Amino acid sequence: MDVKIKRPLNELGAAEIVEKIAVGETTCEAVVRDCAARIAMHDGVVKAWVNFDSELALAQARALDRGPRREPLHGVPIGVKDIIDTFDMPTEMGSEIYRGHRPPADAPCVALLRRAGAVILGKTATCEFAGMAPAATTNPHNAAHTPGGSSSGSAAAVADHMVPAALGTQTGGSVLRPSSYCGIFGYKPTYNSFNKAGVKPAAESIDTIGWLARSIEDIELLTAVLRMQAPRPPRRLEQAPRVGLCRTEMWDTVQPESKAAVEGAVTALGRAGATVREVKLPDAFTGLRVIARETINFYERAACMAYEWDHHRDLLSPQMRRYIENGQKTTRDNYVAGWRRVEECRALLPTVFEGLEVLLVPCVQGEAPKGLASTGDGSLQAVWTALHTPTVTLPTHRGPNNLPVGIQLVAQRYDDDRLLACAHWIWGKIGAPKMVGCHPSP
Amino acid sequence: MDVKIKRPLNELGAAEIVEKIAVGETTCEAVVRDCAARIAMHDGVVKAWVNFDSELALAQARALDRGPRREPLHGVPIGVKDIIDTFDMPTEMGSEIYRGHRPPADAPCVALLRRAGAVILGKTATCEFAGMAPAATTNPHNAAHTPGGSSSGSAAAVADHMVPAALGTQTGGSVLRPSSYCGIFGYKPTYNSFNKAGVKPAAESIDTIGWLARSIEDIELLTAVLRMQAPRPPRRLEQAPRVGLCRTEMWDTVQPESKAAVEGAVTALGRAGATVREVKLPDAFTGLRVIARETINFYERAACMAYEWDHHRDLLSPQMRRYIENGQKTTRDNYVAGWRRVEECRALLPTVFEGLEVLLVPCVQGEAPKGLASTGDGSLQAVWTALHTPTVTLPTHRGPNNLPVGIQLVAQRYDDDRLLACAHWIWGKIGAPKMVGCHPSP
Repeated sequence: MDVKIKRPLNELGAAEIVEKIAVGETTCEAVVRDCAARIAMHDGVVKAWVNFDSELALAQARALDRGPRREPLHGVPIGVKDIIDTFDMPTEMGSEIYRGHRPPADAPCVALLRRAGAVILGKTATCEFAGMAPAATTNPHNAAHTPGGSSSGSAAAVADHMVPAALGTQTGGSVLRPSSYCGIFGYKPTYNSFNKAGVKPAAESIDTIGWLARSIEDIELLTAVLRMQAPRPPRRLEQAPRVGLCRTEMWDTVQPESKAAVEGAVTALGRAGATVREVKLPDAFTGLRVIARETINFYERAACMAYEWDHHRDLLSPQMRRYIENGQKTTRDNYVAGWRRVEECRALLPTVFEGLEVLLVPCVQGEAPKGLASTGDGSLQAVWTALHTPTVTLPTHRGPNNLPVGIQLVAQRYDDDRLLACAHWIWGKIGAPKMVGCHPSP
Repeated sequence: MDVKIKRPLNELGAAEIVEKIAVGETTCEAVVRDCAARIAMHDGVVKAWVNFDSELALAQARALDRGPRREPLHGVPIGVKDIIDTFDMPTEMGSEIYRGHRPPADAPCVALLRRAGAVILGKTATCEFAGMAPAATTNPHNAAHTPGGSSSGSAAAVADHMVPAALGTQTGGSVLRPSSYCGIFGYKPTYNSFNKAGVKPAAESIDTIGWLARSIEDIELLTAVLRMQAPRPPRRLEQAPRVGLCRTEMWDTVQPESKAAVEGAVTALGRAGATVREVKLPDAFTGLRVIARETINFYERAACMAYEWDHHRDLLSPQMRRYIENGQKTTRDNYVAGWRRVEECRALLPTVFEGLEVLLVPCVQGEAPKGLASTGDGSLQAVWTALHTPTVTLPTHRGPNNLPVGIQLVAQRYDDDRLLACAHWIWGKIGAPKMVGCHPSP
């Protein structure tokens, strides 16, 4: 006798949830119940959520079940990083300063999701103001390790199957790094793709809203909503992609597992028929990570935290105070010189990408580091954030402690659809790591 | 016997106020009292302020008088456009939806001004969400005419000597147009010069905070504060500037008084020893005003108003509803194509500016139109906003109704200091219009 084991609804992806609800196989309420059950079971350890009110989430779900069908996300639960405004839940930004703060409106990204039928499941833990001071969140693969940051709760909640997808933001590497550490897909679109009104800025010239999810298909579906695009069949490659292997100037600092991920991906791609050639970045890119991580970030952070610095300095973390002090010492001239360098590099990208669809680059230094005091190093992600190019990480590999290690793909600005199509193709060829570990999946 | 008539303190510029307070000739409180008296006398007609609480302003001034000297704006009253957050005054955005709304913090631009010793005098009237639906403000030169928008209150308050300077924002032409209509100096810096956290976005990829003031020197002083720069002697030209006369594709639509302003400026500049040569914009610029005014604005407006559209549609003006509907019809592909065009043009600017420090271009179609139902046409300002170039308007001319008509100067991105130096030089040669009218100065 065949026994069909019923998969809990919290394990479904966004597109699967939409489909099952559409055909009457389940309800919005049932999906939220399974997510809530998972949260109740695991969040004591994972600590992904800073605001989860199951009654509020169930009320949204029941309203959807009662009302007309919405498109294209009817009944999909979404987690929202807690620097993003929600009208019906506090937005506390990982800071005592905003304890209990209730914004007057949803951020547009949240409003567009609700309009499309999403359930805003709750608010996910963020580093203080999306900076460096960690949230309490732990890595669902091993609670002794950081989940990465600053979109810590979004990454952990998605990886732990508490929610199919969550909004994050990236100013350095705050979407891709936690995605890589937690073994999920992370997508940072071209700068200015998703409207970021109602999101607390870190460095507004590079802040980018992104998606953390468990499949490329879900990212494509969710992205159409934030772009205000009617859903359409996602773009797919007609032939194997041409890939540039770009080790970057940080290669010598990259740990073996991350080198192995990139080189393993190259081998797999070659075997699958993709063209891979090595790309060396022009000299202008040398040191760009310092401009991205420090000059731009410090200067803008010092500006955008002016009120908190003057009124609530004692409630800021030591990390944030140091950051702001560095920014106050960064001159306007250095900041402008930094931007000129970034723009010089950006103008070189068409040459870098000549004949290539995507670059394959290391995503992270290695596995999620042990300990919760730091969320890891953002240098490998930050360069692309400053360049405004779209990037995606795929959870293709594992490291020596059986923790996830992702690869990073980068495309030219506005070439997001092709990036996601390449990511889909590449994921199809490489897929998830085949390791038998003590903790294969959270 | 010489009788020295004492100039009311509200007529002083920011730098003069700082100086007089520093030498003990007056106090912060006395300055605020004179501004408050002017507001009490004129604002019944001008309607520049939506929130002015003289007690709150006086309390700030007294605290400054009692406390240690602050640099570099000790005691300078500033008006703040009412889409910019203030922690101690409502921020209502020209909309019933936000009636009485109290943000939890100052926007960074406001916090930096307070840190420098400014008195936040009050909130100035804005078009609804910095859009097209006018505030009640009238032109101080003639109350039957629009003051321009969307920084209507900021322009009128400065022109009417209620405050020496005010913050505005420009997404199309919302700083330069009202400045020109009201006969004051308006400055829109290079995009991303002043941190715009805490400012309600209109189209965040082009929204720019700017200054409305009564002198270039004051703009330079205030700009250093928002750039977090230590005050330093402003840059001055060592020789006459090389100026490009750029009539733009809109020249045939420009009214005689605005053509006369530009051509009069050319004559005066030539006489003063400046080199002026005519510049024709490359073909790529054709139609750029439509991309700037419509494609980008519509699309981003529809996104950033998602919450208000879904929850408070009946409280939006017909103009805003039309705008949002247009944005909902604007495809993502058109929006991206629009940005690609803007960036193509931006990349051509070094060629356009070859051998030139600034472009001289028409600022407005003509004098402030009669009536308050529209705030005038923003096409002549909007192209430069989308290009992210810094622009300044100088109140050099008057039209047939004796209303002000400004000229517009444009520089390359990040070349703001040189732009202001050129503006200073040019203003020194052309100066204010010498007309004896019924209403020579408000």
